[in-house]
Amino acid sequence: MIEKEPVSPNRRRSRWSVQPGAEPGTLIDNPLSRSCELELFVYNPETIVEKKIDDVAQIEEIWDRQSVLWVNLDGAEDATVVRKIGELFGFHKLALEDVLSGRQRAKVEEYEGFLFIIAKMLMNGAELETEQLSMFVGQNFVVTFQECPGGDPFDLVRDRIRKKTHSKIRSAGADYLAYALLDAVIDHYYPCLEEYGEILDELEVRVTSGLDSKTVNELHSIKRDLLTLRRAVWPLRDAVNTLLRDESAYVSKETRVYLRDCYDHVVVIIDWIETYRELGSSLTEVYLSSSSNRMNAIMKVLTIISTIFLPATLIAGIYGMNFSPERSPLNMPELNWYYGYIYALALMAVLTVVTLSLFGAKGWLGNFGFKASEDRTSSGGRTAERSAD
Amino acid sequence: MIEKEPVSPNRRRSRWSVQPGAEPGTLIDNPLSRSCELELFVYNPETIVEKKIDDVAQIEEIWDRQSVLWVNLDGAEDATVVRKIGELFGFHKLALEDVLSGRQRAKVEEYEGFLFIIAKMLMNGAELETEQLSMFVGQNFVVTFQECPGGDPFDLVRDRIRKKTHSKIRSAGADYLAYALLDAVIDHYYPCLEEYGEILDELEVRVTSGLDSKTVNELHSIKRDLLTLRRAVWPLRDAVNTLLRDESAYVSKETRVYLRDCYDHVVVIIDWIETYRELGSSLTEVYLSSSSNRMNAIMKVLTIISTIFLPATLIAGIYGMNFSPERSPLNMPELNWYYGYIYALALMAVLTVVTLSLFGAKGWLGNFGFKASEDRTSSGGRTAERSAD
Amino acid sequence: MIEKEPVSPNRRRSRWSVQPGAEPGTLIDNPLSRSCELELFVYNPETIVEKKIDDVAQIEEIWDRQSVLWVNLDGAEDATVVRKIGELFGFHKLALEDVLSGRQRAKVEEYEGFLFIIAKMLMNGAELETEQLSMFVGQNFVVTFQECPGGDPFDLVRDRIRKKTHSKIRSAGADYLAYALLDAVIDHYYPCLEEYGEILDELEVRVTSGLDSKTVNELHSIKRDLLTLRRAVWPLRDAVNTLLRDESAYVSKETRVYLRDCYDHVVVIIDWIETYRELGSSLTEVYLSSSSNRMNAIMKVLTIISTIFLPATLIAGIYGMNFSPERSPLNMPELNWYYGYIYALALMAVLTVVTLSLFGAKGWLGNFGFKASEDRTSSGGRTAERSAD
Amino acid sequence: MIEKEPVSPNRRRSRWSVQPGAEPGTLIDNPLSRSCELELFVYNPETIVEKKIDDVAQIEEIWDRQSVLWVNLDGAEDATVVRKIGELFGFHKLALEDVLSGRQRAKVEEYEGFLFIIAKMLMNGAELETEQLSMFVGQNFVVTFQECPGGDPFDLVRDRIRKKTHSKIRSAGADYLAYALLDAVIDHYYPCLEEYGEILDELEVRVTSGLDSKTVNELHSIKRDLLTLRRAVWPLRDAVNTLLRDESAYVSKETRVYLRDCYDHVVVIIDWIETYRELGSSLTEVYLSSSSNRMNAIMKVLTIISTIFLPATLIAGIYGMNFSPERSPLNMPELNWYYGYIYALALMAVLTVVTLSLFGAKGWLGNFGFKASEDRTSSGGRTAERSAD
Amino acid sequence: MIEKEPVSPNRRRSRWSVQPGAEPGTLIDNPLSRSCELELFVYNPETIVEKKIDDVAQIEEIWDRQSVLWVNLDGAEDATVVRKIGELFGFHKLALEDVLSGRQRAKVEEYEGFLFIIAKMLMNGAELETEQLSMFVGQNFVVTFQECPGGDPFDLVRDRIRKKTHSKIRSAGADYLAYALLDAVIDHYYPCLEEYGEILDELEVRVTSGLDSKTVNELHSIKRDLLTLRRAVWPLRDAVNTLLRDESAYVSKETRVYLRDCYDHVVVIIDWIETYRELGSSLTEVYLSSSSNRMNAIMKVLTIISTIFLPATLIAGIYGMNFSPERSPLNMPELNWYYGYIYALALMAVLTVVTLSLFGAKGWLGNFGFKASEDRTSSGGRTAERSAD
Repeated sequence: MIEKEPVSPNRRRSRWSVQPGAEPGTLIDNPLSRSCELELFVYNPETIVEKKIDDVAQIEEIWDRQSVLWVNLDGAEDATVVRKIGELFGFHKLALEDVLSGRQRAKVEEYEGFLFIIAKMLMNGAELETEQLSMFVGQNFVVTFQECPGGDPFDLVRDRIRKKTHSKIRSAGADYLAYALLDAVIDHYYPCLEEYGEILDELEVRVTSGLDSKTVNELHSIKRDLLTLRRAVWPLRDAVNTLLRDESAYVSKETRVYLRDCYDHVVVIIDWIETYRELGSSLTEVYLSSSSNRMNAIMKVLTIISTIFLPATLIAGIYGMNFSPERSPLNMPELNWYYGYIYALALMAVLTVVTLSLFGAKGWLGNFGFKASEDRTSSGGRTAERSAD
Repeated sequence: MIEKEPVSPNRRRSRWSVQPGAEPGTLIDNPLSRSCELELFVYNPETIVEKKIDDVAQIEEIWDRQSVLWVNLDGAEDATVVRKIGELFGFHKLALEDVLSGRQRAKVEEYEGFLFIIAKMLMNGAELETEQLSMFVGQNFVVTFQECPGGDPFDLVRDRIRKKTHSKIRSAGADYLAYALLDAVIDHYYPCLEEYGEILDELEVRVTSGLDSKTVNELHSIKRDLLTLRRAVWPLRDAVNTLLRDESAYVSKETRVYLRDCYDHVVVIIDWIETYRELGSSLTEVYLSSSSNRMNAIMKVLTIISTIFLPATLIAGIYGMNFSPERSPLNMPELNWYYGYIYALALMAVLTVVTLSLFGAKGWLGNFGFKASEDRTSSGGRTAERSAD
Repeated sequence: MIEKEPVSPNRRRSRWSVQPGAEPGTLIDNPLSRSCELELFVYNPETIVEKKIDDVAQIEEIWDRQSVLWVNLDGAEDATVVRKIGELFGFHKLALEDVLSGRQRAKVEEYEGFLFIIAKMLMNGAELETEQLSMFVGQNFVVTFQECPGGDPFDLVRDRIRKKTHSKIRSAGADYLAYALLDAVIDHYYPCLEEYGEILDELEVRVTSGLDSKTVNELHSIKRDLLTLRRAVWPLRDAVNTLLRDESAYVSKETRVYLRDCYDHVVVIIDWIETYRELGSSLTEVYLSSSSNRMNAIMKVLTIISTIFLPATLIAGIYGMNFSPERSPLNMPELNWYYGYIYALALMAVLTVVTLSLFGAKGWLGNFGFKASEDRTSSGGRTAERSAD
Repeated sequence: MIEKEPVSPNRRRSRWSVQPGAEPGTLIDNPLSRSCELELFVYNPETIVEKKIDDVAQIEEIWDRQSVLWVNLDGAEDATVVRKIGELFGFHKLALEDVLSGRQRAKVEEYEGFLFIIAKMLMNGAELETEQLSMFVGQNFVVTFQECPGGDPFDLVRDRIRKKTHSKIRSAGADYLAYALLDAVIDHYYPCLEEYGEILDELEVRVTSGLDSKTVNELHSIKRDLLTLRRAVWPLRDAVNTLLRDESAYVSKETRVYLRDCYDHVVVIIDWIETYRELGSSLTEVYLSSSSNRMNAIMKVLTIISTIFLPATLIAGIYGMNFSPERSPLNMPELNWYYGYIYALALMAVLTVVTLSLFGAKGWLGNFGFKASEDRTSSGGRTAERSAD
Repeated sequence: MIEKEPVSPNRRRSRWSVQPGAEPGTLIDNPLSRSCELELFVYNPETIVEKKIDDVAQIEEIWDRQSVLWVNLDGAEDATVVRKIGELFGFHKLALEDVLSGRQRAKVEEYEGFLFIIAKMLMNGAELETEQLSMFVGQNFVVTFQECPGGDPFDLVRDRIRKKTHSKIRSAGADYLAYALLDAVIDHYYPCLEEYGEILDELEVRVTSGLDSKTVNELHSIKRDLLTLRRAVWPLRDAVNTLLRDESAYVSKETRVYLRDCYDHVVVIIDWIETYRELGSSLTEVYLSSSSNRMNAIMKVLTIISTIFLPATLIAGIYGMNFSPERSPLNMPELNWYYGYIYALALMAVLTVVTLSLFGAKGWLGNFGFKASEDRTSSGGRTAERSAD
């Protein structure tokens, strides 16, 4: 198994550099393609062969066309290998082009001889990234192409195939295998969503209990990631729905029941994504309001300080003037008063109190103990005393 | 009846940790599952048996298949019990998986031999939480699974079954019982909405009459709770609509008339949720505007104080300079004027008045009596004198 | 006619306290119900009987089943009266429950023997409130229930019935009467909308010409009222559309043409509500921007005052220091200069001018004549000189 | 041709004062109605009669029922004239009521014997206003009612009718004439939209290059006007679509091709209205951000000034204290230092520099050259070097 | 090939000046039209003729009606040339009018004898602009009109036609050529979107790491450009979908498979446009929040400076007063204290510390090390340790 390197989003995006007007179905080799890996499962209720192969030709040798074949190519970036597999199974050129392009939405297309399914699956890694899973489902075979080499969410499916003879997955056909893989892809979104739920919970605590300039960047990150998830999951819903409704020959009626379950899961995921998006927006609003509250509080401090000290400073300045009392009895007679100094200090105090109370009476400074950051409201504060129970 | 413990939201969420790729229909035991309770009603127009049982097998003994059977499992977290019930009635594995997962949306699915209905019902408790109600409706039986042990909104339904022979509910079939339960779930949302309406009314008073830093957090809490309600009720609408429209064999035409009523109730609830959401948004805007107004008011105070005292302080400072009048007649001759001091004080007064009036004329300070917090507008101020009556 | 008392919104809301799980069709007496009034019209093209009755039984005596009967109950809060009427005409229990609940959306439902129509109509009063009109339309009869006692918009309809023999309304059937009543309900919204249009016009003048802290509360009130209107009118549209499209036996083809007109009116009302909502949002934005502009203006004043007086105050402070020029020729020689005082004053002036122009050059203070409140823009400033005419 | 007077929006609105419950089809005379004008075109491929008439009865004399007749009433406010025309052609009362009410949305209704079309057309004038065009299309006739007297966009259509025999418009039937009129109404919106595009371009320059308190009011005006346009054009789209799709007997298959063109035009107009609305919103956001930036800049100036002068002023104040150095060597020995004054000035300088650099290091004042108003970004700054060409 | 001049948006818009009421299908010569260029391809699997011609009549000479003909007019502004081509092929006047108007949305219309397709393609140039591509597809011919002279994205298609005999494009019919051209137009959007993605990434770094007043203008530019793209691409989706679904005789079943691919590409582009729009909005919010944070930080600095220096300045002012201690022992005895000066300085220090700590305790100044610009959050901060692989 090849070690998974962190794949930068830039690399992926650069593949967009399509050449407008090029022949459709042109399979362009990705210049950055890394080594890929071919994995093979051939099973029927009784027997099972699992093998890693190097050469596409080996497939024909191993597969007897009666058993179910699952070919999994991890790292579908090498046009040569993809083309060879395509030729072996007779896949349409346009489908193969989609496999290599890596920028498709989830979709289901029916071609002659096979169903072509694309889904986006989450990659394991520090950053949220999706990779493209391309799946061909035909009579007794499933061929999957994973865009990037490295881990996938299919290990439990592999175990179920290996473990038990005559199990559901061993007895059912290729369509059930395809369902099982899709289901694994979809269920892989749950832990990721759970994480975002926890991050949002934590951000809610931080936003409502105080201010932190990083919070807003984190809220943006989450929104961006949720946009990515959304772009991956919405088309998936349509794709699964197509599988469910269309009367395709490649999906048995029994498997459709399972796909209905699959569809429900996707819808639940979408529900949560949308909820988290709205929560994020609401938190941004709370953040802005708190920021505005805090500003109000700061400005109040500044205003109060100015109100206390500016008037007093003026008085002090006045009695620091050098008008000579000798020249005229009108020139600063206070300087020679017996209680002059005390009078001046008292004047300061009185002026300050008057100014403060003047503005305070208007209601602006009265609410001085305004504490933007201390008390956090209990969630919703519902105190329902219902009748039941 | 088991005492209801407060269930933390974390516990519920942790159940999301599904294993991607696991076999569908795998019934995973919830490690946190608490003791559950099995309740049994077997009734026909004349007779009724009500019993709490421990063993699933007892059902077969009591139920004669002609009477209507209602089995209610409170606390559907024990996979063993659920599996046993499932085997007894022949429920599909996927449906049972949904019962245990607890993270399904409201839905209606038809399987062979039964209808499978999921709804979210409100839990009693300080915080807004929903629990999953899973319902199987078949020929003469209704099996309900409540996710969490503890109170439910069905007590009145139980009373109606117990009380009168030949009443509507005793005479009608299992579909009517299912309707009655759904209706109770839906009506249970009303008091909760009423509460939010009151909280919003109160917040409106607080927001429009003054500022309070907690308000914005409470508005956020309400938005979050309304999102939860919405996520619970929207799919419920679709589910009831499905019951109403689909020509299912398990719902009689007569019961459909009642379901139409049920559907109307859900739509009214949705209407209110959306209205409250918009009211909440509008209040947030009012809050921000008021905050901005208040800031304006504070800044005006600061500016006025500066405008009054800074010029005067400068004058005082100037006549506090120590240039010696002896050296030159140009050096601060005012200090030796007879009316020097009075002149200085007058200068201060004049300068202040000039500055104030200069800016006041621009219209910035004129509106000084600006009171952000005192008067509250009457609601809409409509003074309609209409012609009618 | 009973004197209309102002009905507080709380009273209405309290009726929500439904009992989840109660028997559907349970007619709960409203404990606050006030005396109601029964009004009777029996007419055919030639004759007409109009009477106020006390006892429901009188209806049977007066109505010959060939003429059109209109029974109007003003104040449908007394379950006993409603039940009696229901029994007389054979109305379905669920419909009667809806009549009493008062919290239904507008809708049209077809039952056996009658059509059941609910609409919300505006109440006369200082505050915007809606009351529920429930209407039963059957073969030759219309029964209307008004939720609250007091005025209704039907006086002109009554006059039309009374006035002329062989008029359209006298000749047409019960369906035309139902249409006429619905049309009156809908047209009653127009004057109310007109009022909101005027309030918004006035608010627009106030918002764009200056600031007023009450404005934002009034904008919120309008938004809230528009939400109420919206909740009343949107379902009305669907209801009228249902009447229009469904091939109900109770609505003749001729009346459908009139209902189409009715439908157009509802859509026009919805158009205006949505327009007013958007206007309100835009005004809130303008308000916030103006508030921000005003803040900018205030801050500029403060900054300019500080820029003018702080430097000068420093100079004054410096020459007020007491370093003794006698000790050293370096100690404040300016104090003994011949032009010392003038130099100091000049220094203040120069420093102020330099600072002001320094910041002014950056473009911050240059736009000093910034008048946030004086000029109002002409509406859109369109100066179209088109070719036509 | 009657001189067009500016019509105030109030006048129009006042017509809303409908009487709820009045008989449908009541043609209420507009008390403010001004003199109207009847214009007549009777044409076939060879001949044409154009005439202004005073009496409705003249129509019958001139029209031979084989040629196409176009009656245009400019100023449809006189109920008497409208009623007379209605009786002549047998128009439905409800349609005539709509003609007079002037508050209808664009719509297409089929009555027996004619199609009834309503559209909103722009009025020429300084303010954006719409007037109602009501059109009846029947076998060989088109009757148009313009709400307000004064110019219309039909002059070119008139010219096309007059000019050439056997031209398309002369050869085609009444449906083509109706199309031509509708097309003129729709194309009349283009110059208006172009104007708004230019205003928005100008506002964009103003908003991004500096602040101007009027801008936000103008943005609001544009939004309001766009709302008016939107309310006029959206239903027009539906109306044209109805004409296009419905298999009405009054619209020939050939004309439908032209209506498709008409429909495209309306959709283009809607596209632009929506784009302008979003541009307006984006500009409001830019305005708010710039306002906030400018505030930041102003506050920085204030803070820097305070940081420079407050510490220095304190030092000056300290050495202006009058503690007598004679009493104790600890009392302000600096006053008697040889370099005392220079030391004090140096202290001021040092303290200022330290404070400035302290806060500067935090990154708050470092970005001092922050110029909110000087540089405008080039549009999008795209520097595409694409491969093509 | 004609040198491409930068085309100002004004020029394009001015073409809107349609004359309302003019004859439909009037081909108005664009007064600004520049020289155009006619390009001809006639090919079949074996042979190919490529020629630039001056006279429309030459087409007939070269084309044998069995080979596929592609006529490309670069710069479709000359009504004469367009009319001539239209007459040659029998195009409908309305379609030709659309070709010249340049303000059409993307659409597909079926006329007798040909399909008419309009698409918007990106122009190469510094600013984002679209030009209209009008395409007529008929039996064995494709005629394309490009609105503006200059480069197009079709060079690779030309190469594919030229290069290989019996290639797919040479063997397939006119419909495949039309598809190939459409596909080139659509793929031409990818590099443009990639660019916007990069600009947004860069803006995200700038917004989250610090403030820059230009950012908000750039965000606006991007939003405006995305609106333009959106207006171009959304109708394109509908157009391609129409081609895909309609059972038109001009599109073979085989080509439909390719069009499905085309459709997917358009949808991916729309997905990205919408994502970028939302990212832009989120960034604007982050910008506003950061701006608000920064303001808070600045205000704190100002407040702290005032808190430090104002009280001390007052003390200094007090002891600078000139009350004469000789007159009374109560007049400023401190001046004669032995430790008077030290006491004064200490008083200043104490007062400052007390004030600072007083406000600091309230939590307003405590968070002084608030750094709005230094730390950037890692993207989303997901630290997923998933189970897989």
